[in-house]
Amino acid sequence: MTPKAYIFDVFGTLVDWRSSITRALQDAFDAKGIIADGAALAIAWRDEYDPSMAPIREGRRGYTNLDILHHENLFRVLKRAGLSSAFSEQEQTTLARAWEKLDPWPDTAAGLEAFRGLGLIAPCSNGSIALMSHLARYANLHWDCILGAEIARTYKPHPETYLAACRALQLRPDQVMMIAAHNADLGAAQAAGLGTGFVPRPQEHADPSRAERFPAGDWTATGQTLIGLAQEIQSMHARA
Amino acid sequence: MTPKAYIFDVFGTLVDWRSSITRALQDAFDAKGIIADGAALAIAWRDEYDPSMAPIREGRRGYTNLDILHHENLFRVLKRAGLSSAFSEQEQTTLARAWEKLDPWPDTAAGLEAFRGLGLIAPCSNGSIALMSHLARYANLHWDCILGAEIARTYKPHPETYLAACRALQLRPDQVMMIAAHNADLGAAQAAGLGTGFVPRPQEHADPSRAERFPAGDWTATGQTLIGLAQEIQSMHARA
Repeated sequence: MTPKAYIFDVFGTLVDWRSSITRALQDAFDAKGIIADGAALAIAWRDEYDPSMAPIREGRRGYTNLDILHHENLFRVLKRAGLSSAFSEQEQTTLARAWEKLDPWPDTAAGLEAFRGLGLIAPCSNGSIALMSHLARYANLHWDCILGAEIARTYKPHPETYLAACRALQLRPDQVMMIAAHNADLGAAQAAGLGTGFVPRPQEHADPSRAERFPAGDWTATGQTLIGLAQEIQSMHARA
Repeated sequence: MTPKAYIFDVFGTLVDWRSSITRALQDAFDAKGIIADGAALAIAWRDEYDPSMAPIREGRRGYTNLDILHHENLFRVLKRAGLSSAFSEQEQTTLARAWEKLDPWPDTAAGLEAFRGLGLIAPCSNGSIALMSHLARYANLHWDCILGAEIARTYKPHPETYLAACRALQLRPDQVMMIAAHNADLGAAQAAGLGTGFVPRPQEHADPSRAERFPAGDWTATGQTLIGLAQEIQSMHARA
């Protein structure tokens, strides 16, 4: 079955959140003459990400967009570091929007263009429609539409996130392929009936033990780069 | 208040549905050697559009996407013309997707580029996410995201359609401007608290009495072309 659409994880798969968030935090600290480790705080902020979505995935909290969660998580991380009073409410709001300005990996723009030649392309991220729209402007990602958590009103890896994307595309799950650098994301997409494409992003985490260098499942396709993955998918269909 | 985002009516405002649908129908008739008036059937098909959405707007029918409504309406129009048996179910399904391939007006691409320089841009159409995605590919419309009926689960001019778009953008209604060639669309957007921009599209209808050549309300801005409208908005803000 040749996919008619490709949906993408964004944070880590298409953009380098760690170096971009590190820079945003370090710039904010430097501007106030605060001695603090932007890199460590960036990792601490990201570590709040998954736990903050869990209550929504589990139905214990109504859908709350990731912008609000990022803001809540930032406050918690700054407070823990004894820095929450150093930033006004307005400054924290501005800093929380750092997730709208994440640098793409070097092959992202060309890789997405290659996928555009294969079918419709859309993010299937936990980011909101507004966040994904601003990030697309910043990182020059040319999407056909924005899918993901906000359409589904829940968060990955809840199966509804992937299935809502397929419904919005008016395609069956087996006509859609999920592309990600995270094996768990692909596992959830595969369980929901979608095709799966893996690309490693070994630089995503500072801690090499967290790197997902290899496919950890029976994915439909694997590439060393996004462009390589698109070419692999294209040649699979040419052979079929 | 300078808008941070611009949302657009699509059918009639950005694309010339009438000539494109006429051509699609005429081609389908010609291919079967059927003597029928594509132009008249295109108008009859479009005339089914608003009545088919009314039960959904009024809560008498659950949200049903426009692709399905177009298909139902096409069947009704072909049947009335004695032509429904001339097309198989599959052929009618294919023909119903003619709304994915509508030619843009000559100034649409450059006009949208001008608006991209002013803020985020998105369709706020009654078309589905899939329909808008395919149409954007065909007509080369580069959106930041796809908003409109499917996000709102109801149809314009229900106020929820405009308000759901603002919520997805995480903006207040007075930070968003609706752009349309239809005074009723702008009236509903204005009542919901949005700014309004009018551009006349005198060629939209074959019947000149249906043309909306002039603004029929106190709209925020008016232009003779989409580019002119963008320039007018830009100069209003430069003066402010």
